[in-house]
Amino acid sequence: MRQLSHQLSLSTRGKGLYSISRQVESWVAESGMRQGLLTVFMQHTSASLVIQENADPDVQSDLEKFFARLVPEGDPIYDHTTEGPDDMPAHVRAALTQTSLSIPLVAGALALGVWQGVYVFEHRSSGQRRNVMLHLLGD
Amino acid sequence: MRQLSHQLSLSTRGKGLYSISRQVESWVAESGMRQGLLTVFMQHTSASLVIQENADPDVQSDLEKFFARLVPEGDPIYDHTTEGPDDMPAHVRAALTQTSLSIPLVAGALALGVWQGVYVFEHRSSGQRRNVMLHLLGD
Amino acid sequence: MRQLSHQLSLSTRGKGLYSISRQVESWVAESGMRQGLLTVFMQHTSASLVIQENADPDVQSDLEKFFARLVPEGDPIYDHTTEGPDDMPAHVRAALTQTSLSIPLVAGALALGVWQGVYVFEHRSSGQRRNVMLHLLGD
Repeated sequence: MRQLSHQLSLSTRGKGLYSISRQVESWVAESGMRQGLLTVFMQHTSASLVIQENADPDVQSDLEKFFARLVPEGDPIYDHTTEGPDDMPAHVRAALTQTSLSIPLVAGALALGVWQGVYVFEHRSSGQRRNVMLHLLGD
Repeated sequence: MRQLSHQLSLSTRGKGLYSISRQVESWVAESGMRQGLLTVFMQHTSASLVIQENADPDVQSDLEKFFARLVPEGDPIYDHTTEGPDDMPAHVRAALTQTSLSIPLVAGALALGVWQGVYVFEHRSSGQRRNVMLHLLGD
Repeated sequence: MRQLSHQLSLSTRGKGLYSISRQVESWVAESGMRQGLLTVFMQHTSASLVIQENADPDVQSDLEKFFARLVPEGDPIYDHTTEGPDDMPAHVRAALTQTSLSIPLVAGALALGVWQGVYVFEHRSSGQRRNVMLHLLGD
């Protein structure tokens, strides 16, 4: 059994979901491993990870709309406001979704269902550089 | 160190929590491993996973009631409506809970607390066939 | 490759976030491992885990305020009320956050971003003794 890690970097352009399925799957394929465990880890607290439907892009924009309403900007309960009106809502949205995902690798493929894609969920309004650490353990 | 994987399938009968603790624990026991890491992975985007109290069944129905109110059907903000009024809420509920769980195996037993059970959280109204991938790495 | 596990115990003093970063990082450092996968697992259903900003303490109190409002005590939809008005909200808050976290260990350090800390999120009003299982797999 062996392990590999790789830092994936991407630029986001405002709130919403950004697919990283292709980058993740090709990195796993290059490893040559057939069975193992993939960990996807978001190295920020104002962006997060979700596994969501990869078919209809409306799912991705509807998710963004739901979270924008559930965690509104300018909420008077917050004291942490110096980094902008979208910053504290970004931390809350990250707490409500995932910082890490664990995906088994079985028979040479990630165990994602047919309609499942892996997404970075950006919670800040402005463009950001985001780092995601990938770790693969297996053989 | 070695690894095993197994796809667990179950039929759901509408929204709510379905315990898979017994199936998961007996599969882990059959492996004969004493120490390791169990990954539980939901292969769908309109059902998810939660670890919740296994004592009072009211906890499970109260959870369902909370999520039904937080993410109501027929919400006018959604564009993704062709798969039914419960479909987009199902994706949101999945994003708010878990697609993967990681549970250590210590001294021959999963490290679950006394009151913790592993549940599939079904978010669609109609009966569904759900696949959950189990992966165990250890010795 | 080898594995280690350790149960971390802490006392909480009411709802809110409690940093466990230092304890987690020193246990990982003592292991002498350079590359691997850390799993952090909360062994209760009325407390949970989050990775959040470790710089401004207002982020932690603002998170608590958001969850207190989103999941209020005394909500008339609950049947599970015998353990107190904060008990069922605690289970909901746990379902909305994390029971397990997976953090890669890369080049001798956890892959946490500069501003990321690991927190126990206590959801009960009274002081509690909480157990968190740590598991490390690597070399």
